[in-house]
Order: sequence, then structure tokens, then C-alpha cells
Amino acid sequence: MKIITAIAEMRSLSVSHRMQGKKLGFVPTMGFLHEGHLSLMRCARQENDIVVASIFVNPTQFGPKEDLDRYPRDAEGDQAKCVASGVDVLFMPQVSEMYPEKPVVFVAVEGVSEVLEGALRPGHFRGVSTVVAKLFNIIQPHRAYFGQKDFQQCVVIKRMVAGLNLDVEVVVLPTVREQDGLAMSSRNSYLGKDERRVAATIWRALSEGDRLFRTGQRDAAALQGAVRSILLQEPGISVDYVEIVDPDGLRPQAVIENRTLILVAVRVGRTRLIDNLQFL
Amino acid sequence: MKIITAIAEMRSLSVSHRMQGKKLGFVPTMGFLHEGHLSLMRCARQENDIVVASIFVNPTQFGPKEDLDRYPRDAEGDQAKCVASGVDVLFMPQVSEMYPEKPVVFVAVEGVSEVLEGALRPGHFRGVSTVVAKLFNIIQPHRAYFGQKDFQQCVVIKRMVAGLNLDVEVVVLPTVREQDGLAMSSRNSYLGKDERRVAATIWRALSEGDRLFRTGQRDAAALQGAVRSILLQEPGISVDYVEIVDPDGLRPQAVIENRTLILVAVRVGRTRLIDNLQFL
Repeated sequence: MKIITAIAEMRSLSVSHRMQGKKLGFVPTMGFLHEGHLSLMRCARQENDIVVASIFVNPTQFGPKEDLDRYPRDAEGDQAKCVASGVDVLFMPQVSEMYPEKPVVFVAVEGVSEVLEGALRPGHFRGVSTVVAKLFNIIQPHRAYFGQKDFQQCVVIKRMVAGLNLDVEVVVLPTVREQDGLAMSSRNSYLGKDERRVAATIWRALSEGDRLFRTGQRDAAALQGAVRSILLQEPGISVDYVEIVDPDGLRPQAVIENRTLILVAVRVGRTRLIDNLQFL
Repeated sequence: MKIITAIAEMRSLSVSHRMQGKKLGFVPTMGFLHEGHLSLMRCARQENDIVVASIFVNPTQFGPKEDLDRYPRDAEGDQAKCVASGVDVLFMPQVSEMYPEKPVVFVAVEGVSEVLEGALRPGHFRGVSTVVAKLFNIIQPHRAYFGQKDFQQCVVIKRMVAGLNLDVEVVVLPTVREQDGLAMSSRNSYLGKDERRVAATIWRALSEGDRLFRTGQRDAAALQGAVRSILLQEPGISVDYVEIVDPDGLRPQAVIENRTLILVAVRVGRTRLIDNLQFL
């Protein structure tokens, strides 16, 4: 596996692969890799000639009071995992390489960036869409892989790709979960032992929502209330939101249809966790 | 010359040229072509294997009270001029092809988009940077050509290219002028005969500025005053601004140095005209 830190080197490698007719698959990450990331890499490995992964903890998507400083890192462990998952090229730029000056250019996706996570984390998705645009322009992939756990992020990026006519296919793969159902996330490492146990409530609540859907419940308010009350029964959890929305525009729905989603954000101690489930 | 109206066809043609190692030069325009545009095309012809020009009157860069509806058009004449200037591919998409839905994705360039033209035409440069990003992503050129007449636009686009790591070299070529010095512009076609004569005052005023610089004047306020007073002596002209700025950040300068610019915007009747001169 080749490790690249310079934009110019990454770009010229991508251009030369493209000139040879190779298909490039790209998995952007912030590192501290878990099975969710690795499932994206393995899928990219199957579908492309060259697999590029990136590790870049992007400062512009963190709010001033968020966890940029303590975001978990494990460069060595991550490299071994990338090798084992079939990554050909790992792009690991420094912040100064990606942002040589104070950033003044931003890609904004109106609407879907402003609700849910966007309402609670102002500027977050502007940071995400901008850095993903930059990475797409540097790496020039044919396909890019994202996890459904960050469903809103996937919607934002798909909109950006369409709106800017980026020549990239966005592939969204299922959330990978721990044995007790907790969605894999680098931020799970923040959780103490008791918090970790409490965090499993999220999936229990979503699963109850799914059970209600399967037994015919189509009333969004009723199902939302049931999910919310399971979360609220757990004193270690504060609920940021439980919302039932359509999968394309993330607009609140009164009636649950096929493909409608339930999105959840909670705090467990100092740790914010998100998860979602699509009714299918 | 090939005429293309569909994004998918344009993109696949560009990709296939790139795969063959061809260098693509791109001249984006809003049509109603004049010698300024044609000079860009001829330069692109010399420097590249394939020359792509676009004609697209981009609605998102016009304000609600601006001249979108009456912007001059001449598709047939433009096509003949493109052929004569060595264009290989003319991309002429409909508005519905470029914006199939109400646009929600925007590229914003903070700072340099907000002064001068940006202050008088809010949202103008956001529209420009977004459509240029779209066109770059569709056409995937190695080089793109712009005229110095729209100096601020060139600065905005260079910043955007750097900020989003777009793989495009931005080439800026000198303003082409009429015999009396008026900068060529599609909007000159709006001018009545008297207005056309009045409009030549802009270049007379800028030339006086240049003469003062060459005879040693380095005080920006004094030079600016001299240029402004020439413009104000012409009753057919209203001055929007006369500003002396640095060429990279467009910040006002007190002392004129090499590469400092003077930028002028005026109205002649209903027609807004801009021009500039760099002190060298």
C-alpha cells in the first residue's frame, strides 16, 4: 500500500491510473477505522481496479465547542487495517496541505444541510461538503463509498454531486453494528463501560420502531412517540431528536411509507451518537 | 465543429479525449461573441489539442432587476465565429439541462466575491463560481480561458480553483478593445449611438490614470480622484465606483505599486459597463 501526503502526488497518481483506463474507488474517512469503514473498503475493492482511502480529520466540519481536539486517532492501526482491506493508496494529508490558508471557499447545500444534524451543528455540513468536494477533485474517483449511519451526510453529498455535476457515483452501504446493535462509530471509543451499555438503547428503540412498522403501524407520530419513550426511559440518555423523514429531502412525514426513515440523535454523557433505520 | 447540448454527451467526449492523452482548453462564454471571446478561443487553440467553448446565459448570476431577459443572443453568428476561431466542440446546454431543479448547491468564495461588483450585485459571483464549477466538472478541461475585462471574476475563479483543488489552469488574457478604447463586451450592444460615444470616456479616464502612474504618481487617492473627475465631467455617465486595489485580494490600496489595479464601474443610460487597468 502506497501512503501519500501531498495533493500533487495524489492527483498525478490518480490521473495516471485514469489514463490507463483503471476505475478508482474512494473511501473518505476521519480515521480510527472500524468495521463500518472496512466494509466500505472491501466493497470498493470488489468494484474497482484501484482503491484509494483517505484519513483526514477535517477541522472545518467541527464546531468551536465540539470534539476536534480529542477526536480519536490511530495512524498505525489504521494503516494495517487498510492493507488488510485491500486499499492500494492511503491519502493522509496534513491540515496545512488541505488548507494552506484560512478557508474562504465553501460548497453549501441548502435545505438538507440545515435540518436535523445541521440545525444542531451549524456549519457542519458546509465543512463536510467542502472537504468532500476537495477530496473528489484531488482523487478523481469513479465511485465513492459512504456508510448509511451518517444518512444525512449521504443525502448532502448526493445533492452536492448532482448540483455541481461531479463525475462520481456515490455508493451508500448498510450500517455495521456491534453485537448489541450499536452502530459502529469512531466516537464509541469515548464511551465509558456504563455509557457503552446505555448506548445500546438506541438500537433497541429503533428496533421497536421497526417492529411496529412491520406490524402495520404507519402513523409517524405514534411510532416516533414509541421510539422516543424507550430512549427517555433510560436516564443516561438525553434525546436531541427523533425524526421521521423522507429519504430524499429529509422532510418530516406524517405517514410512514416504504423508504421513509427514522433518524435519532442522542447524548450519552459527553458523547453524541446518531443512528437511523429505513422502513423497507 | 461538434455542437453538444447534453451534459452526459459532453462529459463522455471529454473523458474519451482525456483517456487519449489530449489536452483540453475551455472557453466559457454567455454568447453574443466578440473579439474578446475570440482571442480566448484562438489562444486555447494554440495551447491545447481540443478546444471546447460553451455558450450558456446563466440565470443564477443575474439579479432580479438585471438584464437576463434582454441579454443579447445570436446562436447562428456565434457558431460561425467559433468555427472560424478553431473551436472543436461547442457546448450549448438549455437552462433545464444545467438546472433540472431549483438550484440548492452553491460555491461561495468569501471576501473577493463581496466587494466591488459583488457589493452592487449581491449573489452575482456565487452564481458565477457555481456555474463555472459545474462547467469545469462537466468539461474537465486542463486549461480555462477568461478575459481581464472581468478582472474580479478572474480573481474569484482562481480562488475557487485553489480552494476546491480543481485540476484546471486558469489563463487570463488581456482585454480586447474597440478602436476608441472601449473594452469589448456583449453589453455594448445595448448602447445607443450617443451612449456609445459617451462610453469611450471610460478608457480615456483609465488612460489618464495610466499616464499619471507613468509620470510617477503613486498616491492612490490623487490618481483615483483624477480618473473619477474625468468620468464625472461626462453628464451621460453615472459612476458606480472607481477603486484602486491589489490584484490578489482586491483590497483598497493607499499607495500604487507594480501590479496594483484601478477598477471602474459606470452606468451609461440603462447599461452598466466595467473596465480596469493594471499598473505595470
